[in-house]
Amino acid sequence: MATVPRTRLSPEARRTQLVELGLQMLSTRSLDNLVIEDIAAAAGISRGLLFHYFPSKREYREAVVRAAAADLLDHVAPDPTLPLAEQLRSAVTAFVDYVTANRDSYVALVRGASGGDPGLRAVFDETRSVIVTRVVDHLALLSGAMPPRRVRLAIRGWVAFAEEVVLDWLALQPVDTSDDAEAAPADVDAPDLDRDGIVEMLDGALLALVASAAASTRP
Amino acid sequence: MATVPRTRLSPEARRTQLVELGLQMLSTRSLDNLVIEDIAAAAGISRGLLFHYFPSKREYREAVVRAAAADLLDHVAPDPTLPLAEQLRSAVTAFVDYVTANRDSYVALVRGASGGDPGLRAVFDETRSVIVTRVVDHLALLSGAMPPRRVRLAIRGWVAFAEEVVLDWLALQPVDTSDDAEAAPADVDAPDLDRDGIVEMLDGALLALVASAAASTRP
Repeated sequence: MATVPRTRLSPEARRTQLVELGLQMLSTRSLDNLVIEDIAAAAGISRGLLFHYFPSKREYREAVVRAAAADLLDHVAPDPTLPLAEQLRSAVTAFVDYVTANRDSYVALVRGASGGDPGLRAVFDETRSVIVTRVVDHLALLSGAMPPRRVRLAIRGWVAFAEEVVLDWLALQPVDTSDDAEAAPADVDAPDLDRDGIVEMLDGALLALVASAAASTRP
Repeated sequence: MATVPRTRLSPEARRTQLVELGLQMLSTRSLDNLVIEDIAAAAGISRGLLFHYFPSKREYREAVVRAAAADLLDHVAPDPTLPLAEQLRSAVTAFVDYVTANRDSYVALVRGASGGDPGLRAVFDETRSVIVTRVVDHLALLSGAMPPRRVRLAIRGWVAFAEEVVLDWLALQPVDTSDDAEAAPADVDAPDLDRDGIVEMLDGALLALVASAAASTRP
């Protein structure tokens, strides 16, 4: 019954292919709607063979989210060829561009990861921790000292801030609907924040939060 | 077979009782583990009668999360008898105290709401929007003008920041385990942030974020 020709792939290549197909599918459907049958059909293999590579739907889904997380971390890695002072803004720019280009797999990572599945939750926590550690290390290099706990907490909060702000900003962006004459501007009382404006806002927010937390007089 | 005596309650009182029982149960188990049979047993009614009040587990769960959200919004409502300038800090203090006292139902609201269930997601979005609107209105009253869009976006991000920081702070708090001699301090390199320190940090963060977003020169 298969309509797609079967291809012989090494187990490693097959796993990679199946995960890539899942990542692509996340751009049109939610994580909960990743249907194993559709993935298998797209790969030209049987449902049973897919389960040979991923013992359960849960494990397959986790592999897809893990790939989305690795992809994100790869894109927002600081560029060591830049001067230290410019690395942060460059990483923030890469973050905004990544989320803009991969909105759906990013939402799957952020939101889907919170749904009570411990595996997905772990991927999300690890990803956020890697980003926090990078920023903490960056500040430590810039300042010559490990930031105190309250500043590290503020940096963790800033990552949540950045996630929320970028997703809200994207949700408010005008959609390209040239053939839709009825499309109305979503928010007419203020000019749109452009991409560089969002980058500046996130960058400025981190400095403001770090300064505010560091200035605190409490224990 | 029922071991709990049945009590006659009005439909309204019964619904409230069932939701209250669910809220209590959230302090010992996750939203996914709210078992209908246990709720019905605790209320002294049959499983069938519970489904008379809530047609599905999903609707019951949503009612519980909606009650948790209403409870939170009630607790963090600004106190109109305070001077305007003190209302924000008082609301932030109420937020920190509420999350400290109701950690599990708060986590159910924040995290559980993100798991792909549109009903729970809507409760979460509405709750966050109410808090954002309150803060925006408060700033508008203080400054005499509606904050521009970038400031409103920063306020939305601040709510995400506050959620993350308070949950992280709570997770790092020493647990009261007087009979557990092996309990080790989680983070020995810095003195603990106390409750007033966290309130000051969240309060300061909002002012820092608003000032930083307002000072932006970009469109």
